[in-house]
Amino acid sequence: MEDDPLSLVLFSGTDDRLNAAAVLAAGAAALGRPVHIFLQYWALDAFRAHHVDMPHGFAPEAGPEGAAKIAALNAAGAASWADTLRAAKDIGAVDIQACTLSMDMLGLEPGQLDPLVDGVEGVTAFYSTAGSGQILFI
Amino acid sequence: MEDDPLSLVLFSGTDDRLNAAAVLAAGAAALGRPVHIFLQYWALDAFRAHHVDMPHGFAPEAGPEGAAKIAALNAAGAASWADTLRAAKDIGAVDIQACTLSMDMLGLEPGQLDPLVDGVEGVTAFYSTAGSGQILFI
Amino acid sequence: MEDDPLSLVLFSGTDDRLNAAAVLAAGAAALGRPVHIFLQYWALDAFRAHHVDMPHGFAPEAGPEGAAKIAALNAAGAASWADTLRAAKDIGAVDIQACTLSMDMLGLEPGQLDPLVDGVEGVTAFYSTAGSGQILFI
Repeated sequence: MEDDPLSLVLFSGTDDRLNAAAVLAAGAAALGRPVHIFLQYWALDAFRAHHVDMPHGFAPEAGPEGAAKIAALNAAGAASWADTLRAAKDIGAVDIQACTLSMDMLGLEPGQLDPLVDGVEGVTAFYSTAGSGQILFI
Repeated sequence: MEDDPLSLVLFSGTDDRLNAAAVLAAGAAALGRPVHIFLQYWALDAFRAHHVDMPHGFAPEAGPEGAAKIAALNAAGAASWADTLRAAKDIGAVDIQACTLSMDMLGLEPGQLDPLVDGVEGVTAFYSTAGSGQILFI
Repeated sequence: MEDDPLSLVLFSGTDDRLNAAAVLAAGAAALGRPVHIFLQYWALDAFRAHHVDMPHGFAPEAGPEGAAKIAALNAAGAASWADTLRAAKDIGAVDIQACTLSMDMLGLEPGQLDPLVDGVEGVTAFYSTAGSGQILFI
């Protein structure tokens, strides 16, 4: 399983989904698997420079109670999704690419993205790297 | 990779998620891969006849700013998700099936679906076509 | 295909998404495939003891009309997602595991979970069981 790449298409930009994605990415990287992340829409928006460490809200179903639980964890020093992804990059091969079409939609230039993002690519390049490995849409 | 089928289970019926799904489907079709789409719940609702070209809203996290960006793109002539799927069907093998159980839930008959939809099938038939290929839930 | 495991990462805890997940799990179990479910965040919250048979709301896009359709089906005796999962466990190999990190986040102990949940595991154990089989994030 060590050489099996894992690809994640991130669509959602709320902190709860991004945290779930970061945990799945970090777990695979810790197992020695290459991890390939493709940022679309609101997830890409969350990876803008100076935005990754800001709060991005939660899925509506979190409700005030769920939001309060996560806020309490963060106040107690729990790692943010950006921290988790930075740590995953330190221990493994985690490549983060912005989707060309979503860059256009949001009117973004590569220089406006956080350093966590390694480049910009189209959907064909995404599939090429993903090969026949697992792909999750988050 | 050309012969690897790609299967998409579409659950959500908002225009942003459907557009992300259409881009992933069209990219795979352009690579010569068979694409198999299974419509459940609110995605199926969006494929009703005379509904595919109507606005279906966005994920709540889009906010007014995100919605305005997409509306501006559409006003500038960007392809809708239905347009993208029509084009993908012209260039590749894209088969769109409605989930039997979701048809029942929404009280729909096959004649009430948009011509983009090729048929109705159960979950067992879905798995049979998907084989051991990639499946994304969107 | 009979021996191909299917893995589902459940993140969302609304009744519509959980029902879609239960239908996909039950269909795979009926085909003789081992099914492995990993509960994170709001999905884990929905599997607390005495909570699985309570209403958990719908995705915001359901709207009042969608919610009314599902409520009418339930009143007419349609199986809930918990019923569907119980039946899937009776006919096949369906293993449901809570994510360690989400247990901590929600402040839950194993004894506070519904009997549908078979245990608690970390993301590394999840990947080990999933192998190179299909994984869906719901």
